[in-house]
Amino acid sequence: MPGASHHRNRSSVFTRPRVSLLAASLLLFSGCESGGPGAARNLTLGGPPAKVSYQEPPAPAPYGGPGVSLAPEVKPAPDAPTVDIHLDVTHTKMSVAPGVEYVAWTFGGVVPGPVLHVRQGERVRFSLTNRSGETASLAMPMPHSIDIHAAMVNPADKYQSVGPGGTIRFEWTPNYPGVFMYHCATPPMLHHIAAGMFGMVIVEPRDGYPGRPDRQYALIQSELYLTRAASGLYSVDSLAAAEKRPTYVVFNGTPTRHVDEPLKARAGERVRLYVLNAGPNGTSSFHVLGTIMDRVWIDGNPANELHGLQTVLLPASGGAIVEFVIPEDGIYSFVDHEFADAERGAMGRINALGP
Amino acid sequence: MPGASHHRNRSSVFTRPRVSLLAASLLLFSGCESGGPGAARNLTLGGPPAKVSYQEPPAPAPYGGPGVSLAPEVKPAPDAPTVDIHLDVTHTKMSVAPGVEYVAWTFGGVVPGPVLHVRQGERVRFSLTNRSGETASLAMPMPHSIDIHAAMVNPADKYQSVGPGGTIRFEWTPNYPGVFMYHCATPPMLHHIAAGMFGMVIVEPRDGYPGRPDRQYALIQSELYLTRAASGLYSVDSLAAAEKRPTYVVFNGTPTRHVDEPLKARAGERVRLYVLNAGPNGTSSFHVLGTIMDRVWIDGNPANELHGLQTVLLPASGGAIVEFVIPEDGIYSFVDHEFADAERGAMGRINALGP
Amino acid sequence: MPGASHHRNRSSVFTRPRVSLLAASLLLFSGCESGGPGAARNLTLGGPPAKVSYQEPPAPAPYGGPGVSLAPEVKPAPDAPTVDIHLDVTHTKMSVAPGVEYVAWTFGGVVPGPVLHVRQGERVRFSLTNRSGETASLAMPMPHSIDIHAAMVNPADKYQSVGPGGTIRFEWTPNYPGVFMYHCATPPMLHHIAAGMFGMVIVEPRDGYPGRPDRQYALIQSELYLTRAASGLYSVDSLAAAEKRPTYVVFNGTPTRHVDEPLKARAGERVRLYVLNAGPNGTSSFHVLGTIMDRVWIDGNPANELHGLQTVLLPASGGAIVEFVIPEDGIYSFVDHEFADAERGAMGRINALGP
Repeated sequence: MPGASHHRNRSSVFTRPRVSLLAASLLLFSGCESGGPGAARNLTLGGPPAKVSYQEPPAPAPYGGPGVSLAPEVKPAPDAPTVDIHLDVTHTKMSVAPGVEYVAWTFGGVVPGPVLHVRQGERVRFSLTNRSGETASLAMPMPHSIDIHAAMVNPADKYQSVGPGGTIRFEWTPNYPGVFMYHCATPPMLHHIAAGMFGMVIVEPRDGYPGRPDRQYALIQSELYLTRAASGLYSVDSLAAAEKRPTYVVFNGTPTRHVDEPLKARAGERVRLYVLNAGPNGTSSFHVLGTIMDRVWIDGNPANELHGLQTVLLPASGGAIVEFVIPEDGIYSFVDHEFADAERGAMGRINALGP
Repeated sequence: MPGASHHRNRSSVFTRPRVSLLAASLLLFSGCESGGPGAARNLTLGGPPAKVSYQEPPAPAPYGGPGVSLAPEVKPAPDAPTVDIHLDVTHTKMSVAPGVEYVAWTFGGVVPGPVLHVRQGERVRFSLTNRSGETASLAMPMPHSIDIHAAMVNPADKYQSVGPGGTIRFEWTPNYPGVFMYHCATPPMLHHIAAGMFGMVIVEPRDGYPGRPDRQYALIQSELYLTRAASGLYSVDSLAAAEKRPTYVVFNGTPTRHVDEPLKARAGERVRLYVLNAGPNGTSSFHVLGTIMDRVWIDGNPANELHGLQTVLLPASGGAIVEFVIPEDGIYSFVDHEFADAERGAMGRINALGP
Repeated sequence: MPGASHHRNRSSVFTRPRVSLLAASLLLFSGCESGGPGAARNLTLGGPPAKVSYQEPPAPAPYGGPGVSLAPEVKPAPDAPTVDIHLDVTHTKMSVAPGVEYVAWTFGGVVPGPVLHVRQGERVRFSLTNRSGETASLAMPMPHSIDIHAAMVNPADKYQSVGPGGTIRFEWTPNYPGVFMYHCATPPMLHHIAAGMFGMVIVEPRDGYPGRPDRQYALIQSELYLTRAASGLYSVDSLAAAEKRPTYVVFNGTPTRHVDEPLKARAGERVRLYVLNAGPNGTSSFHVLGTIMDRVWIDGNPANELHGLQTVLLPASGGAIVEFVIPEDGIYSFVDHEFADAERGAMGRINALGP
């Protein structure tokens, strides 16, 4: 590719500005006249400058906080004015299929990273510790960071990279309900995301989401681009990622995982899925076999409601909440209906096989 | 691809469960409190177990039923409490371009399969006969099935595969209006869909769709992945399908078909198109030159109305109803504006050339 | 590709009909009963036949008209019953990256072409002069044309190709507000668009867009497919375009342009972006880091409002107006979150670095 080095040189887009910023905390009344649901409300914007320290004791666990779970589980959102959430960044071996182990870069030691469930308007005191230095024999220690799509803060400050051994702390407030992505924002971002550094944030509306589904699950779709090293271990195939040729496309980390570990429901029940397409490259044509999504909230915001969908199209880094009724006892598969991707692993099951 | 055999082994996702299911017919009141248009309505869910028989006499025609037509034609939806619809599955030679004949796997002997037009709430008694055994010299007889996106039934039962010579019968009720896909659900599904096994179901609202267009047509977009065999016949190129490298992208079966067979309209008329993107892999950026779609119903549901669109983005297995006025005498082409696909054949014409 | 010559032979899709058309001007009341915002309104459709002349004196400038600007600038829409807009088509050398110059085919001598800002209901007297004959040493003179997605006219007449030295004049009226694409419609269209022949039309509602953003900018995403000739100059790589393997993906013409020339805003301000994805092939998962789009109008029509989006998915030839608040001092990057495309250049910055 001509000029490849050219834009690689510009990769400082996502790094810290040279000039130190006045990252003042603003409590702003958004001056919008439209009266739309997204406007004319109190927004809590920005926050005090992020603090980076290389002197902190290790956290008690690789991830923690109220409302933090591992997909497909969704824990209730906390109901408190402030919550503390912590994630470690680690480099870890992950098994993706028999005989296929790769070196993942992770949030919390898992791929996808933990599901963070928070509530609109509450203050999140967030911390991230880069522990990539502890597994230097597995993968080179390196800077990492986190970009939280649910936050409204200065990326050059809060999403700055922190080196091995460092901890970054910043605060943010979720202003809009929805299903958001978080991911590492250290260049090259395509590589960091492809290596496993992504997860879901659910922002519950102040008064909760409408409706009372009988079951709810989190599904995070992503692509894996793998190449085998001489050691037998796999790692991210940068060229395949740049050319959008995925090895696997998966829900919740491994191909066809929820065929072996089906989600559960019963006939007649209403199921809610929090769905995120983390990409890093492809769209997802998300479909559930045997039923119809009677309610779909684009990006998880109830203001964006669609009805009676067979399939919802998710952008790279787009989310949705979808709901449907289980028609009768049976097995209800879900797929990315871009079918080459389903056959690469983007399929799973909801079993409704009686009491 | 590492582990390709791995997820191929899991391909039983879409096959019958080992445990026989209690596929009881449920008439459920969906217990949803939201009051949204998709909620709190009577839904007819599931149905008695499908019946498979290898003893049935052949149907009088390869497809049949009220409201069944061949695209671009749309017949009126029947207005009856129950309707009977039948489709044969056949293996047939199809000409796609001069000198390019391929072995299609079909519903009803045509690609795309017939358009099924039914009405919300009516009971559909559906039957499918696998006649692939009758052309063994052309292609290996094999199991086939049908997945109807408009139905709410247990896929493991109703969408089960049936062998050559067999007939499957099941009932279903369309609960939501829209433009839905049907397709073969026998693994590998990517191959079965790419070989021609897909079609459109239109579900008319109980009281009909709003508006009275002067013309209406059905357009089904799909991709063809072909490779030439020693015999000179073409067949599905599995690798190209897996890698999303289509040979052709078409509306209603063959490249630029509706350039040679243009749809007709007159200046000043309102045209309604029922559009389905069957994939199996790509999205469609559907656009009509020279006009603007003043009304677009995502997935064909009037609850999902958009206005004044130049282009509507359809997922793989997504539909829409689009309407527009023909501004003046002329030729109005329609394309997938993902232009490499238009140039592979995804273009057609509406001629409005006077009385 | 089998049959490639087949559909290439059909490329007359977009050319003039053999029969001369009665391109009468119609002032039509659209007979739609639905009462939807897109229906039952006065539309001005079509117009007198286009006039082509090879005798006109050159225009005073390669582009001109009230409300015409170069992206990212957006000028106010004129407020007059009729406006005159002119564009020259030229073949011009463009620098896309250090050491990478290509021969662009342009509207107005720039890539993307100028932003045309017009008002719903006003009459546009449009002229286009093909000056490709003046740079025959750089690229072969050839016919060109323009297709304006905001217009409702007969493409076979108004979008006809005009040869070198010729000027085409036609009138049109924008009926729907929005962010529309214009592009060359001369076959092969994929090549003409890829070579630079595209731009944005903004149609302001009769009474203006709701809201009063503090800043507004135009962003046009497109793909470049380049191959290096013996001369050292680059030109469009037709095969790469057909196979959707872009060399660069860019906003406003060159990779990472708005990293070097950041857009400006201040903390607390409301920013409106007019975004168009010109393709020619890919979708765009448009995302702004560090904030949330509280208001998104699909295709730029306020009737299609979404709220609280992290990412909006744009079809090829689809637009949107997006608005957001700048949370605090900082650097807010925007990207196509289909991240391989971001790394090919589809990223830029909004700097909010204090007064």
